[in-house]
Amino acid sequence: MDRINRQVVLAERPTTIIEPSTTTVVEVPVPELNPGEALVEVQYLSIDPTIRTWMDDAPGYLPPIAIGEVVRSGGIGTVVETRSDRYQVGDVVFGTVGWQRYAVAGTGPAAMSVLPPGIDPAVALNVLGVTGLTAYFGLLEVGGLQEGDVVVVSGAAGATGSSVGQIAKLSGAGTVIGIAGTDAKCAMLTDTLGFDAAINYKTDDVAAELRRLAPKGIDLYFDNVGGELLDLALSQLAMRGRVVLCGAISGYTTPGRPKGPANYLNLIIRRGRMEGFIILDYADRFAEAQGQLITWLLDGTLKHAEHLVHGLEQAPAALNLLFTGGNTGKVIVVVD
Amino acid sequence: MDRINRQVVLAERPTTIIEPSTTTVVEVPVPELNPGEALVEVQYLSIDPTIRTWMDDAPGYLPPIAIGEVVRSGGIGTVVETRSDRYQVGDVVFGTVGWQRYAVAGTGPAAMSVLPPGIDPAVALNVLGVTGLTAYFGLLEVGGLQEGDVVVVSGAAGATGSSVGQIAKLSGAGTVIGIAGTDAKCAMLTDTLGFDAAINYKTDDVAAELRRLAPKGIDLYFDNVGGELLDLALSQLAMRGRVVLCGAISGYTTPGRPKGPANYLNLIIRRGRMEGFIILDYADRFAEAQGQLITWLLDGTLKHAEHLVHGLEQAPAALNLLFTGGNTGKVIVVVD
Repeated sequence: MDRINRQVVLAERPTTIIEPSTTTVVEVPVPELNPGEALVEVQYLSIDPTIRTWMDDAPGYLPPIAIGEVVRSGGIGTVVETRSDRYQVGDVVFGTVGWQRYAVAGTGPAAMSVLPPGIDPAVALNVLGVTGLTAYFGLLEVGGLQEGDVVVVSGAAGATGSSVGQIAKLSGAGTVIGIAGTDAKCAMLTDTLGFDAAINYKTDDVAAELRRLAPKGIDLYFDNVGGELLDLALSQLAMRGRVVLCGAISGYTTPGRPKGPANYLNLIIRRGRMEGFIILDYADRFAEAQGQLITWLLDGTLKHAEHLVHGLEQAPAALNLLFTGGNTGKVIVVVD
Repeated sequence: MDRINRQVVLAERPTTIIEPSTTTVVEVPVPELNPGEALVEVQYLSIDPTIRTWMDDAPGYLPPIAIGEVVRSGGIGTVVETRSDRYQVGDVVFGTVGWQRYAVAGTGPAAMSVLPPGIDPAVALNVLGVTGLTAYFGLLEVGGLQEGDVVVVSGAAGATGSSVGQIAKLSGAGTVIGIAGTDAKCAMLTDTLGFDAAINYKTDDVAAELRRLAPKGIDLYFDNVGGELLDLALSQLAMRGRVVLCGAISGYTTPGRPKGPANYLNLIIRRGRMEGFIILDYADRFAEAQGQLITWLLDGTLKHAEHLVHGLEQAPAALNLLFTGGNTGKVIVVVD
């Protein structure tokens, strides 16, 4: 094997968004395969906010990415060589490929799944991947969506948020309100994705809008953002309201500890609940959810958008889009 | 009727603890009874942290006490006159009597319950009253206590906290750790009440002690205090840990909004849940809980302590004890 693997590795831990010095591109030989392994040529990288949390030297649900290690990332590629019965040359597989040209699929944590034929890989990474699954289980299981619920979603024009709002409408929510950062995003939520209302958190008085749009309170708040928006949502929680903690993108690129939600005491007054989850815990039910998501995709009721960025070296910049609000829909790096 | 009613009314809203100017004592004629009402001579007042929250002009689970209104409070008294079939002269009744010598028992929200004979009124206000019921339902229902759980309780030497720890041990908890503010209180928790360990939050390194005493994390944190202790408990939460929000006594006497728990994001990493409740919601199950609590009281396994303060005029000072840590056990004013 004389093939060269091109990798984006973590060079130093970032304190805010990713700087040019955060990552570096290295070239190393493609590894020799051990029995049970396959070599995957990576084509798409799933750019998710959680990648930024793995760059911090802090305890999390997975260990931090080590300095000098390839940046951990989900993605999709094609098997180009195999020493495993599990992977055939030509198989399209998805799994934790990392920001690199070639990844090794194996067993255990290094296992990858074979993508059924006929599914667009970008759609697979978006709606059928962790993004759509997070929306699905976070809303329906953790949040316990009920018929007629008033649902509010932050980061609503992002990949997860836009699915959350649509799945809520498809599953019987009464009113779905999205919070996003530009008028164009807000227009997309209401005009294209079927949200009942949208709030521009940069220009609107969010507290006043929540009181106006959800006068009886918020039954379910799906939080991708944290910070001030979480606090405002807590202040407008309905009786027995539920807050689903999916992420806190507003705090990931701010040094130090985030600001806690001072209005958490409203959980007492409103008999509310705030709960976190990690989508990996639902792995044994992914197929069930993907079945439903595929049905909605095929009949056109679940819309999706991908924001494609070209070039492996652009992965750090693509990740930053999530924190600057530069994307609409799922950010995917095309490794070409 | 020429009887005079002595009342402690709210004169101005306090910003911290209660000042001499917060309340004033007035004398008014005892009201004429309407049909369906009874006159109650008040003997005991239940002094609870929630009374302080009702003094703020802020939305809560009950409306604020109005300026000039008798301070709202649970309590116990004896029926001295009746125009109701429901109340007989001589009945000992408990309900929302207020800080006054004479209260009127009626119907609806003004209804009071007749205390069965043979129960010490002070014990009734403590273990069988809202205090014990809050501990019982908060721990077992909201917290979903499971066999072997590591349970941590703040405000552990207070009326609710001391019941929580004991009920946890009686219900199968593995380890019960109390947090209190003096060495004497800590000694009482471990030596008398059967807690496995106690932490003095004023002198111990709470974070280090929690890591040492609960190395695998906290399964259930019962929070009476809020503030920094809540944040530290969140940082040491076990996988699928539960935080029961009962109150936030550390913030009730501090002007402005409380500090939010910055470590709430650990609820995501640990798949945790933080939930509030109001004991009134469990009213239809009070009898069931009281049956169990009486059993534990009679066989001596559930210990209790009352901190009696004499004199209606001392009610404001008695309430302050809760915020200065001056009490051990349930604070009760004896109206004599």
